[in-house]
Amino acid sequence: MSITVRVIGIGPGGPGQLTLDAVDAIGATDVFLLLDKGSRVAELNTLREELVARYGRDGHRVVRVPDPPRDRDPVDYGAEVRRWHRARGDALEALLRTELSDGQSAAFLVWGDPSLYDSTLRIVDELRDRDGLSLDVSVIPGVTSAAALTAAFGITAQGIGQAVHITTGRRLAQTPAGADANQIVMLDSHLAFTETAADDDHVYWGAFLGTEHQLLISGRVGEVAESIAQARRRGREEHGWIMDIYLLRRASGRQPGGDGA
Amino acid sequence: MSITVRVIGIGPGGPGQLTLDAVDAIGATDVFLLLDKGSRVAELNTLREELVARYGRDGHRVVRVPDPPRDRDPVDYGAEVRRWHRARGDALEALLRTELSDGQSAAFLVWGDPSLYDSTLRIVDELRDRDGLSLDVSVIPGVTSAAALTAAFGITAQGIGQAVHITTGRRLAQTPAGADANQIVMLDSHLAFTETAADDDHVYWGAFLGTEHQLLISGRVGEVAESIAQARRRGREEHGWIMDIYLLRRASGRQPGGDGA
Repeated sequence: MSITVRVIGIGPGGPGQLTLDAVDAIGATDVFLLLDKGSRVAELNTLREELVARYGRDGHRVVRVPDPPRDRDPVDYGAEVRRWHRARGDALEALLRTELSDGQSAAFLVWGDPSLYDSTLRIVDELRDRDGLSLDVSVIPGVTSAAALTAAFGITAQGIGQAVHITTGRRLAQTPAGADANQIVMLDSHLAFTETAADDDHVYWGAFLGTEHQLLISGRVGEVAESIAQARRRGREEHGWIMDIYLLRRASGRQPGGDGA
Repeated sequence: MSITVRVIGIGPGGPGQLTLDAVDAIGATDVFLLLDKGSRVAELNTLREELVARYGRDGHRVVRVPDPPRDRDPVDYGAEVRRWHRARGDALEALLRTELSDGQSAAFLVWGDPSLYDSTLRIVDELRDRDGLSLDVSVIPGVTSAAALTAAFGITAQGIGQAVHITTGRRLAQTPAGADANQIVMLDSHLAFTETAADDDHVYWGAFLGTEHQLLISGRVGEVAESIAQARRRGREEHGWIMDIYLLRRASGRQPGGDGA
C-alpha cells in the first residue's frame, strides 16, 4: 500500500498565514488527519476544519485520530515522549489502512511550522518501518510562531550580528551564558523567565498570535512580568487553552564581554 | 506627510511560499521599494518584480532605491553597519518624499522573514525620527529560510526537548558549549562549520531553497564538507549569487553532560 503524506505548516494564527503552497496541498489531499487532543483544544481543530472546508477539494474527508494518554510530568521525559509517539504511530497505522486506498493522500495540518517543537514529523517517522506501508512524505513549511511574534511587535529577533536561541520553558534555566542575548521561548506554561531574567531584561510576549484574540505585552521584565502572568491566566480561562510565546532580550551591558550590540 | 509602510516577508524561494496575507498586502500597496544591490543579485529583484506584477493592483509602481556602498570586512563591524543603515535611511527618505503623496503606502518585499538577519526593519526605524514624516509600519511574517531548509529535508530543527541556536558564519566559533546541539547557520560564505564541527556531526545544507535551482546535501561532516564547498562554488558561478543556509547537528554523545536527546 503506497500513500502520499503531506505535513502542512499552516502558521500560528489566522487563515491569512497560509502559504499558496499550503492552499494547493490542502486542495490535493484525500484524507485529513486531525490529532485529537481532547476538548481542551477543540477550538484549534475547529479552525483546522474551517481551512479544510474552504480549500479542500470535493470528496475530501476529515478523520480524527484518537490521542493516546500521555504523562506530562514524567521522571524520564525523553522516554515517555518516545513511548507516546509509538502509541500514536500504532493508532495512525490502523487508521491509514482502513481509511485510505492505495495511491491516495493524507495530510496533517500543523500549527506554525512542522520543524519547531511539533511532534507530527516524529509520528510520521514512526510509520516508515511498518510492513507493507510505503510513504511518500513531503513537508510544506509554514510561518513560525516566532516570526509571527516579532512581526506583531515590528522587531527583529536579534541585534546586529547577534545569535538567537530558541528554547522551551523547561530548558530556559539551562541556556549557557553567552547564548542568552536573544531567546525565543516556547511551550512555557510556567513563564520560566520570571525566575531566570533580570529586571532590566526586555520581554516581548504574545498569545493567540494572528487571531482576533491576539494578546501582546512588552517591556522591562521588572515592570511587565505580573501583567503577562495575569493576561495568560485570563486568556486561558476565557478560551480553555492558550498558545503563547515570548522573546527575552538580555539588557545590553548586563553581561560584559558578551555580544557586541 | 503620513505614509503606510509594509514590510512583507515573501519566503526564501518560489512564489508558492507567499502567504495569503502577503498577497493581500502586495495588492494594497502603491509603491514598491526595491533595495538595489547591484547586478550581483539582479535575479533576486527580477523575482520580486514578478511577484509584484502578478499580485500588484493597477497603477502600482516599482522604485529602485540605490544602495550606498558598504565595507563588508570592516574593523568595527557594528559601527560600519550602523553607518550604512543611516546612509540607506537618507536615500529612502528623499525617495519617499518625491515618489509618494500623503496617505499612500509603500512596501518592501523581504526574502524569508523580516525578523532574521535582514536589515529592512532597521532601515525603517531610521525613518521614524525624520521631521514631518509620519509612518504607520506593519510587518507581514514570512516563511523563514530555516523552515524551508528543514522542510526540504523532512526533519525537525531539534531533538525532543532540545534547543536551537540560530547564528551566523561569523559568530559560529563563539557558540557556547551546551548551546550547540542544533545550530542553524546563516550568512556564511566561508562555510565556517568546516573549521568548528567534528567529523561525526551531521550537516544539512541547502541553497536556492524552494526554487527550481534548489541544492540539498546532507551527511556526516567528515564525508560531505568538500561536496558542499564544491556545490556552493559551482552554484555561485552559475547564477552569479547564492543564498544558502545549513543546520549543524552535534553528534549525540560527543559532549557528555549535554542535551538529553
